[in-house]
Amino acid sequence: MNMDYYRNTHGLDDGNNNYKSQDESPKFGIMFDIDGVLLRGKTPIPQARDALQLLMDERGERFVVPTVFCTNGFGLKEVKAATLSDKLGVEVNPDQIVMSQSPLEMFHDYHDKWCLVSGPDHDGGSVKVAKSLGFQKILTIEDVRKAYPYLDWVDRARWPQETVDDDHEFPAIEAVVLLGEPVRWETNLQLILDVLLTDGKPNRKATMKKGTHLPVLAVNMDLLWMAKAPTPRFGHGAFLVCLENLFKKITGEDLEYTALIGKPSEVTYEYSQKLIEEIATSLGAPHLNTVYAIGDNPLTDIYGANMFNKFLEKKKRELAHKKEDVEKQMECQLSRCSSILVRTGVYQPEPEAEDSDEAETLVDHGHRDLPYTPEITRPDHIEDDVKCAIEKIFKIEKWPGKKCALQSS
Amino acid sequence: MNMDYYRNTHGLDDGNNNYKSQDESPKFGIMFDIDGVLLRGKTPIPQARDALQLLMDERGERFVVPTVFCTNGFGLKEVKAATLSDKLGVEVNPDQIVMSQSPLEMFHDYHDKWCLVSGPDHDGGSVKVAKSLGFQKILTIEDVRKAYPYLDWVDRARWPQETVDDDHEFPAIEAVVLLGEPVRWETNLQLILDVLLTDGKPNRKATMKKGTHLPVLAVNMDLLWMAKAPTPRFGHGAFLVCLENLFKKITGEDLEYTALIGKPSEVTYEYSQKLIEEIATSLGAPHLNTVYAIGDNPLTDIYGANMFNKFLEKKKRELAHKKEDVEKQMECQLSRCSSILVRTGVYQPEPEAEDSDEAETLVDHGHRDLPYTPEITRPDHIEDDVKCAIEKIFKIEKWPGKKCALQSS
Repeated sequence: MNMDYYRNTHGLDDGNNNYKSQDESPKFGIMFDIDGVLLRGKTPIPQARDALQLLMDERGERFVVPTVFCTNGFGLKEVKAATLSDKLGVEVNPDQIVMSQSPLEMFHDYHDKWCLVSGPDHDGGSVKVAKSLGFQKILTIEDVRKAYPYLDWVDRARWPQETVDDDHEFPAIEAVVLLGEPVRWETNLQLILDVLLTDGKPNRKATMKKGTHLPVLAVNMDLLWMAKAPTPRFGHGAFLVCLENLFKKITGEDLEYTALIGKPSEVTYEYSQKLIEEIATSLGAPHLNTVYAIGDNPLTDIYGANMFNKFLEKKKRELAHKKEDVEKQMECQLSRCSSILVRTGVYQPEPEAEDSDEAETLVDHGHRDLPYTPEITRPDHIEDDVKCAIEKIFKIEKWPGKKCALQSS
Repeated sequence: MNMDYYRNTHGLDDGNNNYKSQDESPKFGIMFDIDGVLLRGKTPIPQARDALQLLMDERGERFVVPTVFCTNGFGLKEVKAATLSDKLGVEVNPDQIVMSQSPLEMFHDYHDKWCLVSGPDHDGGSVKVAKSLGFQKILTIEDVRKAYPYLDWVDRARWPQETVDDDHEFPAIEAVVLLGEPVRWETNLQLILDVLLTDGKPNRKATMKKGTHLPVLAVNMDLLWMAKAPTPRFGHGAFLVCLENLFKKITGEDLEYTALIGKPSEVTYEYSQKLIEEIATSLGAPHLNTVYAIGDNPLTDIYGANMFNKFLEKKKRELAHKKEDVEKQMECQLSRCSSILVRTGVYQPEPEAEDSDEAETLVDHGHRDLPYTPEITRPDHIEDDVKCAIEKIFKIEKWPGKKCALQSS
């Protein structure tokens, strides 16, 4: 994260726009989901502009409430920030964006290892995204296909026409990074399994020892997402279901992820916390108590907020044990994530179902490795849309907001 | 099965070549696996020609021992018969061939229903194969993609450029037929699930009631198969693992197959039994006691032979109950399938491992719905190659065979 860029472009270094005292500054931040809350596909949700205006200064030029945008979308955060700015008429900074893959920035240990990267090719492609995260030794599925021409064998139209040699100079793969759902799943599934079973040398016989395989980092567990079809479409979670079950069927063992990244994983909320606290500090509002997470999907947004809350409580208990020397640290520590479910996206209950319990999701579409109880998908609040959600937050926080914007509602 | 064709081309109608009495006729038949037993890829296994010669008349022109070739391969049986004839220098008739999909010929109830057919496009394609089996109302995955352009959504390069309408005349799909592993698994998996969840109208919201979904017929459960790479490649079974687990994850229920077809399913052995008994009758050798199944894969060939044996025993017990009126039927009924594992294909034990128990397979690569115990993959005999296997059978059956051929060994 480059906070200098954030400060400079937002003119916060001149000192005039910072809160004069910490008493005046907001004790809360906002974490927006994007799809189903602010946009549906490429179309803004009607209340989204007004909602964002409520968080900005009188002139509508910059955020005065610490705000991040957290999506399980894939791609460069610069592209996402530009899209949001364009569609919603406010200036969103790339450093306010948490894409599904963003927390991989923190996995420095893998940045200088030979990583097999699997993912989509749109929006600049997986290689561009992996580079932007700090990965330096990137190998694609296509690189492996070319190096070992006898591995990808489902599509007979792609079998080599003549005898070809393996590339014996091809580096041994040291980790597998799964950025998102690729095209031609059979190719990616086969080559990823080959790499895991052979400890990174997929033209050799299987060498994997029981209970050990190369590190696997996976981004975005969404099983399904809502596109234009009447039923939701496959997300990266669907690809991971295939990979996990093929690995289990072939080896008899469980695939173990080194990290699962993206909502609703803890690491994504940790990263978002760090980001929103840095933004708050840069605004002169360093003491946040509550982050409000506004989302439309009980299984990612609400589940994740509740998971994050448990994590914050655990951290608080840990700090309480060392109370004396960390009293100050405790004061500043974000203490609660409060979740708000909106009705403009995935969550669309029957008209008669109108209480918070109804938002519980009874079929577990979450990832295999994440604990599941219906309670963990229960939001703290349910509101019609993102503007109502912001107004609700202001009411709870007794925050004056902008009178003009509130009056227009 | 067109036995007239078999008889005519083999000249058995002239009466001269039939066994003069049933005492002279063989009481056994042979069921060959092809890959790893007779051919490896397109190359004949050295002992294969000699082995087949042992089963033919003195002039090497026609089979005198009832023989069928049973493969989990996909395609037209005429093509497979021509390949075998060409590679092995004997005339193999298409009616001696059991391809993985062949038993679908017997599923007449589905031949006049609108079937979604998923499978490979090589060797004449799935449509050609489905037609050859008797299916009349065939819809492909590509047909569904074109009729409903918003369903196949993983590959953004294939999203429609402009707004397009669904084809409202497209017929409601009544059954799903899975012939083999397709290309672009994400497309096939998504569209098959859409069809199942919507009772055949995939542009509508999900309507599937708990515990009911459209009939699913699946051909060829092989998880993996041995190609040129040092580790085995995905077969159709790997695709089915993905489909079953996505169905389970999305609906919370088990996918139920109306039929699983191809080795090692019972229906394939039933079909092969019918075929070999018809061939035996046409040879004037109608009373078979034993079918010898020669294969290289404990999990398909040997497992299947042992399953078939259990089925024959059950049938025998059932007939014993009605002994009086069916005594003659019992005499003629095939009573045993004996399995022989050869070392020229999948099964390649360490040199020191040299007893029949070692052939047991300890990781279950078989299909989810088939019962698994290590014992069921144990063969009755293990031989080096297919010629040794035939000689072993002749010894057990005290069959004179052809002296010349036996002497040449």
